[in-house]
Amino acid sequence: MMVYARTCVSAAEGYVPGEQPVGDDYVKLNTNENPYPPSPRVLEALRTASAPEVRLYPQPTADLLRDKLAEVYRCAPDQVIVTNGMDELLNLVIRTYVELDDRVVLTYPTYVLYETLVRLHGASAVSLELEPDFSLPDSIFDTSGKLLLLSRPNSPTGTVFDKGRVAHLAGGFGGLVAIDEAYVDFAGDDCLTFAQQFDNVIVMRTFSKSFSLAGLRVGFGVANRDVVNELMKVKDSYNVSALSQIAARAAVEDCQYMRQNVDKIRRTRQRLTVELESLGLQVAPSQANFVLASPDGYPLSAAEIYTRLKERKILVRYLSMRRLDNSIRITVGTDEEVDCLLKALRDIS
Amino acid sequence: MMVYARTCVSAAEGYVPGEQPVGDDYVKLNTNENPYPPSPRVLEALRTASAPEVRLYPQPTADLLRDKLAEVYRCAPDQVIVTNGMDELLNLVIRTYVELDDRVVLTYPTYVLYETLVRLHGASAVSLELEPDFSLPDSIFDTSGKLLLLSRPNSPTGTVFDKGRVAHLAGGFGGLVAIDEAYVDFAGDDCLTFAQQFDNVIVMRTFSKSFSLAGLRVGFGVANRDVVNELMKVKDSYNVSALSQIAARAAVEDCQYMRQNVDKIRRTRQRLTVELESLGLQVAPSQANFVLASPDGYPLSAAEIYTRLKERKILVRYLSMRRLDNSIRITVGTDEEVDCLLKALRDIS
Repeated sequence: MMVYARTCVSAAEGYVPGEQPVGDDYVKLNTNENPYPPSPRVLEALRTASAPEVRLYPQPTADLLRDKLAEVYRCAPDQVIVTNGMDELLNLVIRTYVELDDRVVLTYPTYVLYETLVRLHGASAVSLELEPDFSLPDSIFDTSGKLLLLSRPNSPTGTVFDKGRVAHLAGGFGGLVAIDEAYVDFAGDDCLTFAQQFDNVIVMRTFSKSFSLAGLRVGFGVANRDVVNELMKVKDSYNVSALSQIAARAAVEDCQYMRQNVDKIRRTRQRLTVELESLGLQVAPSQANFVLASPDGYPLSAAEIYTRLKERKILVRYLSMRRLDNSIRITVGTDEEVDCLLKALRDIS
Repeated sequence: MMVYARTCVSAAEGYVPGEQPVGDDYVKLNTNENPYPPSPRVLEALRTASAPEVRLYPQPTADLLRDKLAEVYRCAPDQVIVTNGMDELLNLVIRTYVELDDRVVLTYPTYVLYETLVRLHGASAVSLELEPDFSLPDSIFDTSGKLLLLSRPNSPTGTVFDKGRVAHLAGGFGGLVAIDEAYVDFAGDDCLTFAQQFDNVIVMRTFSKSFSLAGLRVGFGVANRDVVNELMKVKDSYNVSALSQIAARAAVEDCQYMRQNVDKIRRTRQRLTVELESLGLQVAPSQANFVLASPDGYPLSAAEIYTRLKERKILVRYLSMRRLDNSIRITVGTDEEVDCLLKALRDIS
């Protein structure tokens, strides 16, 4: 006999991540990975890891990593929760704080996953339309909910909300404010201190982007310790692999290496932006490791660009969502990868 | 302003896993890890893993591993879901199938985590008392629910339910039947074919026990493909680390090595059982890599044994749960570790 899933699940489509082709014959500019390898210390740490790390359960709260994160990001260790990528943390925030009749406040356009997660939980979301320049609408200051999810820099636009307005919002919002800072190391400023300033703020980070560890699934959140305690109850006991904990610790012990990669990516982002604009694409001002480009003065549509580039083994992300249905999101790769993309864009135009 | 968590979360205590001491000066017989290292192929595969595996997102559905699992466990690849340990799979089964007003059927005593997960989800569980010999009570055949969670071999008793009765139960139960086979490689038989035979059965396995990969967090489930599809919607996109996928694949490609370790552990289990009994402890007939022992003819209580052993740097699990409040659960370690335990038990008595 077939058993039916919960209504909210069977009705949902699930989140579809960007393509992950097997093999490396693609120029992969579709899922915002870092084009540079992680610190050599990471690979060294992984190489010296031995049988006991593999055989024994990992530290449930990743204490060694947590202590290091607390030191680097200037907070107490018990204000930090380490998770299986930031995906798990997003999930935990919803499952810990949102009753099924609670409302989650989102912006639009933003990371599509947020709404998917809220729906799969069985709750509902209200999405507030961002202004034409992707800034926060005034209406968000009058909107109530149990949880507000903000992405800063925002994905997939790459733009940042004014920091002062986010502080104002956090101070006035009656529920939890979760700030997704996945891309923040590529930006000019961050909201980490809000986690100290406001009891209702959790700042969420990942090792997948600036630290080049997408394969290892490590994210973390910084918040008031009561918030952390509640999230800890809901997370799986052994949620982060022992090797991932070791690798993330080595990575955060070499932040200088990460910052050098970030600097390279920011320079390439600047060049990519200028060149795309000279080809007739309009580019939103990006503070992330990707740019959102619309072919306003370019002879092909975004969907056509996606297809033609894929034929040339270049993957970019065509998101096919309202307001962005004539945009593509391009990860800032190495200078060589970007040259390859720009050449292809010239060839197909 | 402080924000309150969901009622079901703030009221819950969270699951407390066994102690994970840092350093290796303990004889660790408390969390059922395998005392032997994984196949040399695993460590070799991890050592040859390189920057791209770490830098790029892992395969969302772990296809290379899934194909291998399908081959070894004789099912179609789309009948397999790979998860971040079996913990994630337990979580997914509940979140995918259980509405908050649905009832989950459990047995007692069993793995305490099940009830914790049901409560944290916001649903309720009914626990049916096992017979004095830990076999299934007749009442379970007349109990309805959306989900039935069974552990076979059962944790923390180590005993197995009669396979024919489990088949009969699966055939008649109106909801999903999830069979936790974490310890099954140490047992005489398994229920894997039930996943083919019954549309409402999911069989759940882990790499943490027999394959010696507890640190890497890999579990999997085998079920009807419709069940797998619904679970896939709810799981995080990149739920299993790239290195964990690589390691698990290497492990399952060397099942012979795993079976040799299992044989050693079964021999040690037999010897441990006989020796514990000769010391005056009563041991439940175990098909797992641990034994449940009660000091019926031994001069100390279970709680005292736990404390005295810990003073001697030997960790066993004292579960402090009804019906088992005078029992300790002892992981079957190496012969040397077991000798060390037996000597300590003689010394303290």
